[in-house]
Amino acid sequence: MKQLEDKILREGVVLPGDILKVGSFLNQNIDTTLLADMGSEIARLFDGQGVTKIVTIEASGIAIAAAAGIAMGVPVLFAKKHKSSNVDGSVYSTVVHSFTHNEDYNVVVSRDYLSADDHVLLVDDFLANGKALEGLIDLVDQAGATLTGVAIAIEKCFTGAGDRMRGQGVRIESLAAIEAMSEDGIVFRS
Amino acid sequence: MKQLEDKILREGVVLPGDILKVGSFLNQNIDTTLLADMGSEIARLFDGQGVTKIVTIEASGIAIAAAAGIAMGVPVLFAKKHKSSNVDGSVYSTVVHSFTHNEDYNVVVSRDYLSADDHVLLVDDFLANGKALEGLIDLVDQAGATLTGVAIAIEKCFTGAGDRMRGQGVRIESLAAIEAMSEDGIVFRS
Repeated sequence: MKQLEDKILREGVVLPGDILKVGSFLNQNIDTTLLADMGSEIARLFDGQGVTKIVTIEASGIAIAAAAGIAMGVPVLFAKKHKSSNVDGSVYSTVVHSFTHNEDYNVVVSRDYLSADDHVLLVDDFLANGKALEGLIDLVDQAGATLTGVAIAIEKCFTGAGDRMRGQGVRIESLAAIEAMSEDGIVFRS
Repeated sequence: MKQLEDKILREGVVLPGDILKVGSFLNQNIDTTLLADMGSEIARLFDGQGVTKIVTIEASGIAIAAAAGIAMGVPVLFAKKHKSSNVDGSVYSTVVHSFTHNEDYNVVVSRDYLSADDHVLLVDDFLANGKALEGLIDLVDQAGATLTGVAIAIEKCFTGAGDRMRGQGVRIESLAAIEAMSEDGIVFRS
């Protein structure tokens, strides 16, 4: 998606440790014009695939998932990162390791909101090491739901995680796919 | 907003401790048709007020803020609940007490994304004791920005927090305002 790639080139900042800072428009401050366009693009990519539910993970995936959900007219379910007192005991749960915070956390969704009848589109802001995405796929499997595909705003292709999952038959669409990045520049997958 | 009130009456569950569970359509599973309509209603309420930025707090405020931001064509900034390694050291920061989890946490936004030129609309899913909202107002004050107003999905009027803040001159618009609730029923402010 050229509009997102251009924004990354203009405003993204590459930091040591393969961090791409996009807080100015994607995951802290949100450019809502771009956000709506990203939602429309995800809707276009998965048009006619029978998606019944979008699933994402708090917090930075929520805005993109909401924009896609509005564009597609399907509900959005967000997995929570710890068991809140507002969630019933009957949850699907998995453990995800965060390299950013160097800790494991529980990712849960209520069994009430995900069922074997659902055809799920997973949406998140980043795909890097794939741990969060694997956790969400585990929740979809636990529910007996069908995984239709995955929509990602920015994929760090150089980790290999996205291509490894594609090799396992998961359809992954990334709006911006980064082959290589450094302080000298960013190269997108063509 | 009658559409939201009707949804609360149909699907909301009142639990002991003045908890209103709306996970089926608002803060875990999200009805995106209702979400888009809530965004449009917030845009209508604050039309012509010169809002330059919507500010919310992760995680459950993000979807509503995103819908309002798309409808109003203004960016959305979300405050984070702990200092992430992806946020620079130069942040506005305040401490908020969570009664749900019975702990204090830091709420931060980067100084890069909020300035004295901003006219801010605060958006959140719930207004109950007002602690999260007071924290966001503190961040707006620290930035020297102008507080245009507050848009809330569901206000628990019986806490008195919203009316106390209105008494201090804050414009607060709640899409559903609950005067009283129990397992026997919910009474909205007329």
